[in-house]
Amino acid sequence: MALAAALFADLDQATRRGRGIVRDSYGEGEQAAHDLVRAAAAALGLTISIDAIGNLMMTLEGSARAAPGIVLGSHLDSTPQGGNFDGAAGVVAALSALSALRRAGVTPRVDLTVMAIRGEESSWFDISYIGSSGAFGLLDPRCLAVQRSDNGVSFESALLARGFDPDAIRERRRLLDPARIRAYLELHIEQGPTLVEKGLPAAVVTGIRGCRRFRHARCHGQYGHSGALSREYRRDAVAATVALLHHLESVWIDHERRGHDLVFTVGEFSTDPTLHAPSKVAGETRFVLDFRSTSEDVMDEVVAEARAAAVRIGEDYRVRFDLGETSDSPAAVMDPRLRAALRGVFEQPFEMPSGAGHDAAVFAAVGIPSAMIFVRNDHGSHNPEESMDLADFAIATRGLIRLLVDFPF
Amino acid sequence: MALAAALFADLDQATRRGRGIVRDSYGEGEQAAHDLVRAAAAALGLTISIDAIGNLMMTLEGSARAAPGIVLGSHLDSTPQGGNFDGAAGVVAALSALSALRRAGVTPRVDLTVMAIRGEESSWFDISYIGSSGAFGLLDPRCLAVQRSDNGVSFESALLARGFDPDAIRERRRLLDPARIRAYLELHIEQGPTLVEKGLPAAVVTGIRGCRRFRHARCHGQYGHSGALSREYRRDAVAATVALLHHLESVWIDHERRGHDLVFTVGEFSTDPTLHAPSKVAGETRFVLDFRSTSEDVMDEVVAEARAAAVRIGEDYRVRFDLGETSDSPAAVMDPRLRAALRGVFEQPFEMPSGAGHDAAVFAAVGIPSAMIFVRNDHGSHNPEESMDLADFAIATRGLIRLLVDFPF
Repeated sequence: MALAAALFADLDQATRRGRGIVRDSYGEGEQAAHDLVRAAAAALGLTISIDAIGNLMMTLEGSARAAPGIVLGSHLDSTPQGGNFDGAAGVVAALSALSALRRAGVTPRVDLTVMAIRGEESSWFDISYIGSSGAFGLLDPRCLAVQRSDNGVSFESALLARGFDPDAIRERRRLLDPARIRAYLELHIEQGPTLVEKGLPAAVVTGIRGCRRFRHARCHGQYGHSGALSREYRRDAVAATVALLHHLESVWIDHERRGHDLVFTVGEFSTDPTLHAPSKVAGETRFVLDFRSTSEDVMDEVVAEARAAAVRIGEDYRVRFDLGETSDSPAAVMDPRLRAALRGVFEQPFEMPSGAGHDAAVFAAVGIPSAMIFVRNDHGSHNPEESMDLADFAIATRGLIRLLVDFPF
Repeated sequence: MALAAALFADLDQATRRGRGIVRDSYGEGEQAAHDLVRAAAAALGLTISIDAIGNLMMTLEGSARAAPGIVLGSHLDSTPQGGNFDGAAGVVAALSALSALRRAGVTPRVDLTVMAIRGEESSWFDISYIGSSGAFGLLDPRCLAVQRSDNGVSFESALLARGFDPDAIRERRRLLDPARIRAYLELHIEQGPTLVEKGLPAAVVTGIRGCRRFRHARCHGQYGHSGALSREYRRDAVAATVALLHHLESVWIDHERRGHDLVFTVGEFSTDPTLHAPSKVAGETRFVLDFRSTSEDVMDEVVAEARAAAVRIGEDYRVRFDLGETSDSPAAVMDPRLRAALRGVFEQPFEMPSGAGHDAAVFAAVGIPSAMIFVRNDHGSHNPEESMDLADFAIATRGLIRLLVDFPF
């Protein structure tokens, strides 16, 4: 793990700004990380190329070069004031794995390519999965006009400033051919507390949760005097919304009992600050419903139930719910053969879903068998307190190596 | 009802400003109403006096002048852009009743005094029950410094500008002796929809609800990624608050089933707009709990249950509720003999609590047997759409006259 330790230290030194890490997508921070990783790959003797939108490909060539290869990817950008491991851990693990194979004198059967993917964090440019979606020609060309959140520079200008080619996106050019990729593997720190709580170093990811979000849900009731209005005449938007949310929590618990993957979150909820008062029955609420699951069926079911319950409870409380449309992101199922193989390489095999999105979702969506390994990480991600033990990282990376050595297909 | 119709029309004409009525406490609007009412009382031959803080007393003298008299009171001020009937209806009804007695040649046994009370609406000066509390020497002298909400004029300056005497408040002078008042009677429009919904012209008030309010309740949880955090590890402030509010609604329903008077309102609820996000488990909520009842025991019971449930549910959800202290206003029970007598004077006797506060609460609190009659009123109060039929007003006023003619004690 000397290579990994050195790379993490170099990345930290090059991109720490104050308390946190700043690797701005297509900015100086991300570029500094790409430069360091590229130098490390060159030192390992890997074949290096950079695609039209800046993704860095570092290949250990296989004996059957004509056969579809395996991509080991992750991103090198971070959120503003993020941590050192979200993204970078996957690239460092992949390089460490190739280094280990090379040291052991193994020539892989097919090409093994480490892909340092650009712009995965949408906090700089509000565009999902720039590097991986762009590589498959899937970005909407209108995204070139999107401005960077902190300095207003357009995505197109940012590409040009680094010498990349906006036309690749404008023409929806396919830089990677899914048919040429046998499998996609991604190691990433866990962004929740599950592995810390369970005392496990690593997990095999079952799938990446999709999302159905009612972003602008409303309940319309009627304002009234809190003392003078008895229950039977109220059209209380808070009471009705509480009833709806309480019901949806019971729906969630019921799905859990049935063994279904689901999380349900109301991250925003408020009465109208310009009209509400302690002595007024509330005439309006605004809230967000966020349902996530690795199963499209489960998400479809809860969305339908949310709509039905809103009608039912709206009638009970003499209010009108307007949930609006959902904004959707699809779930990505990880490949069952890869999952089974990964379960075999860990001493304490444990599987869990990924609640956050990852580039693996893009690879899975274009039909490439994909898999992910989570590494235990304390304090969540996207903050300077990210905390990953190198011992856990080593266990997860050894799992990746074993998978490559004994690949299931 | 010719007197009443004329007075309502005059009040409307003198104090309508745009769509609504403006009778600012101690301002031009309230004074205009006092001037109109005083002129009407003079025309009826009533004995008129004004106390040191501007309450207008209009007396039909009884045969036994040494005996404690009966006060028929209400206020003449309105909220900004209020309606024509909130407050004024009680004064007009009392004058109409005395006019009817005089027309019928009745000399009452004891003095019957119509009291046009100053400053009942706290929307101008944030002081509760200025006229009635002040008459009993109960105002905190510090209230003299309170500034009028729209123009910043101090209450003391407003008193002086009308020729009244701030020293009466500064010295807590008692302008009315409770021992000299046999009973207090107040007619008021209903401020909720109950009589409209029930198709009844008037009601006998059982009591004036007190209030226990948790004005600054908080739930402290922990922010987290909505996708990456499974239910068992969440400290979700919204989910916990929803559970608490749902429980308190069931407590309310249970009290209703037991025949207890109670209303429960959450008029304000919000996550923190500077920290919340659709994809974040909420780490904090802020909300208001407002419990009102005519029974102190019921209020004590629900407040204790709210505190106990906050601890229990806080543990279940791994969050901490901080409900804070309650701000309290006491309940006022209406006199049982007067209630019974009033039930006897109406064709369709119906009793209900008052959810809003009234000067009658002050009279009851100093030990004066008090009663209230509600008149049907559409669209609530404190708005230009207040809508009272003169026919309902006549039924309620006839009830008041019958009570005076056949007084129970």
